[in-house]
Amino acid sequence: MLGRTYDDQVCSIARTLEVLGERWTLLIVRDALLGLRRFDDFQESLGVARNVLTDRLRRLVEAGVMERVPYQQRPDRYEYQLTAIGRELAVPVIGLMHWGDRHLAGPAGAPRLTRHKDCGGKIHTRLTCAKCGEAVPPAQLSVEPGPGLRTRPARATAR
Amino acid sequence: MLGRTYDDQVCSIARTLEVLGERWTLLIVRDALLGLRRFDDFQESLGVARNVLTDRLRRLVEAGVMERVPYQQRPDRYEYQLTAIGRELAVPVIGLMHWGDRHLAGPAGAPRLTRHKDCGGKIHTRLTCAKCGEAVPPAQLSVEPGPGLRTRPARATAR
Repeated sequence: MLGRTYDDQVCSIARTLEVLGERWTLLIVRDALLGLRRFDDFQESLGVARNVLTDRLRRLVEAGVMERVPYQQRPDRYEYQLTAIGRELAVPVIGLMHWGDRHLAGPAGAPRLTRHKDCGGKIHTRLTCAKCGEAVPPAQLSVEPGPGLRTRPARATAR
Repeated sequence: MLGRTYDDQVCSIARTLEVLGERWTLLIVRDALLGLRRFDDFQESLGVARNVLTDRLRRLVEAGVMERVPYQQRPDRYEYQLTAIGRELAVPVIGLMHWGDRHLAGPAGAPRLTRHKDCGGKIHTRLTCAKCGEAVPPAQLSVEPGPGLRTRPARATAR
């Protein structure tokens, strides 16, 4: 288990991994972004044990990333939908996908292509500057201490 | 352990998690993006056992994400630097951070702020369209089968 164990890290990446970092969880979010909603569909896509899937979905609901929505009565049936907060994970999740497409897909190429529904253009995941509007290469990224950073040993803060 | 166990998933997210998904690995990449390079600095920042850190750094070097670079002779000393491929992880890693800043940081606010070195503007992580140039909200994201997708049960492909 990767989750719930970065307690002393005052860091939004660590906190995010406490929600998403357990085995299968990010792939459940991926499948939900691809349109899956029902338990059996997630189970078929992932090949994960049902009790593990139940646990991961429960935690995603608790974290506000997914919600459990009834779609049938007698018997009651529920499906799992991303919340607005969960849908925002498209940015880092597609960012991980594009990185893998570039560096791990090999000659077969990308397993999936991302497009803008409106115009059909390819989607890029980039750091962009809100002030000048430019795409920001990693070398031009500065990470500075923010208001939520408690005092920590110097090495743990940005420089 | 989260890594190396998504073998039957034809997916760049799963492949990326095979490289990055083990406990501590993404936080090592975070610290490297923040400027840390030396074993003892990573160890101090993370509070992780030295043998675990050794293992994670070795795997990141094997994967081409980091490289081991000599910085002193007699005795030989090495530091760990992100490769160009590793630095590209800034996009998904900062994306995870921004998501955590918005939804998990609480009233204390973001532990770290990201800025564009050139102009000081705030950094955004967004999906953008290469054709029309617009920021693409998750609802306007289409994920389609790509050349690297082997035939799989229908539910596992994009729709």
